[in-house]
Amino acid sequence: MIVVKIGGASGINTKHIINDITKINKTGSDMLVVHGGSELATNLGKELNYPPKFVTSPSGHTSRYTDKRTLDIFVMATSLINRNLVRTLQESGVNAIGISGIDGKILSARRKSTLRIVENGKQKIIRDDYTGKITCVNIMPIKIMQNADYLPVMAPIAISHEKEILNVDGDRAAAELAGKLDAKSLVILSNVSGLLSDIADPNSYIPKITGKQEIEHATNNIAQGRMKRKLIAANEALSAGVDQVIIANANIKSPITNALQGKGTIING
Amino acid sequence: MIVVKIGGASGINTKHIINDITKINKTGSDMLVVHGGSELATNLGKELNYPPKFVTSPSGHTSRYTDKRTLDIFVMATSLINRNLVRTLQESGVNAIGISGIDGKILSARRKSTLRIVENGKQKIIRDDYTGKITCVNIMPIKIMQNADYLPVMAPIAISHEKEILNVDGDRAAAELAGKLDAKSLVILSNVSGLLSDIADPNSYIPKITGKQEIEHATNNIAQGRMKRKLIAANEALSAGVDQVIIANANIKSPITNALQGKGTIING
Repeated sequence: MIVVKIGGASGINTKHIINDITKINKTGSDMLVVHGGSELATNLGKELNYPPKFVTSPSGHTSRYTDKRTLDIFVMATSLINRNLVRTLQESGVNAIGISGIDGKILSARRKSTLRIVENGKQKIIRDDYTGKITCVNIMPIKIMQNADYLPVMAPIAISHEKEILNVDGDRAAAELAGKLDAKSLVILSNVSGLLSDIADPNSYIPKITGKQEIEHATNNIAQGRMKRKLIAANEALSAGVDQVIIANANIKSPITNALQGKGTIING
Repeated sequence: MIVVKIGGASGINTKHIINDITKINKTGSDMLVVHGGSELATNLGKELNYPPKFVTSPSGHTSRYTDKRTLDIFVMATSLINRNLVRTLQESGVNAIGISGIDGKILSARRKSTLRIVENGKQKIIRDDYTGKITCVNIMPIKIMQNADYLPVMAPIAISHEKEILNVDGDRAAAELAGKLDAKSLVILSNVSGLLSDIADPNSYIPKITGKQEIEHATNNIAQGRMKRKLIAANEALSAGVDQVIIANANIKSPITNALQGKGTIING
């Protein structure tokens, strides 16, 4: 079992990913694809005169401020990506089914009812944010699809305990799912070739991070921006029993096969 | 097995529908829900400065002209409706899974590569329309979900033979599915109480239409606008083996139960 996360940031071309999924799918290996949608959600928001607002937590994480309207925009954007991935996979001969984390309560999450942010140096509380932290994973819908030889492709939303739709972090969703599915590998594909030691040099990726201490060091001292979250997700996946997490470049030929062969930052426990 | 089509036109409140689905679901009866999305697609198009264009065929049918951009808008609108139905069903205790007709190739369709329309009294050909006529139905993904006690909720798009996404008529999609699923009843819920003999009188619905001749007469001589399509869909469902089709009002308490008890236009073979 391999879980593949396809980043939603700009500059990701899915062509090579689709070809590689097709190849791996033919070997009979079970897969789950989880995707993002940040760039399209941002662009759709702008087109709808409702551009996204990003907020920064006291610990320095940046996240999308998701009020009800932004949530609808996020749901539409991720759904369009989902349908297009399913379409392209079927064009390539893979019988895909598009789902989201709310279907069959695959992803239950706790809504962060208050969000503490920093604005102009001051702390502030936001109360109408629809983001969540995953609390429970139900892999049954994924299993029944895989057992019937369908490839599930999943949008990163979850259902709250109060049955609201929530925006959840795609990397962490993929990590939780990889753990519950007993995945051997979680491959996180994005527009960079791994954790870079020098952010200005795309070839400076660190090939291997091993053990809790190295992961924590990398998270706190090397990673910047979104990469911090990917390392937190990687750590969660390893704690949940995944053998290895590979952060790798989406924009090369056979990106998943290459990642599994070591091209990228390999993280293990 | 009951197939329920929820119309996508304006003025449909899903609250009573959700309550009724919940009640019926508890009896253990297998269901499939198919929904539309026309109103939201129209509104989203307007918000995106891309309002819908409607075209009229030489035989007088009106349909949405679906170029590539309109298709994306339609996909986003129907997906948002789909996710919200799944969310509301789960709030009501029904374990729903949202799908679309492209998933697992549930609905294959032939793209109408040229569309003959009438504009200002003249015939014209349109070539970039992404609508289709369903040619093949694969009920396997629906069956595996129902067998695992999930309620599938489906958006009305299909995959073309060239693996494009197509906008398909929701009523006819529901009819084809009802046939393949050996459904006893297809309930088509909309904002009117049935086929009206007097369009100005909402209570003038014709209670019963029986046999091919009566259906054809009603289609050609009584029905107007969208209702023509519903009767064509009804006829297709009956030909495919469905026992009865009921066109009924969505906006009353227990609309499905009431429809099954005769409140609406009951059509049978």
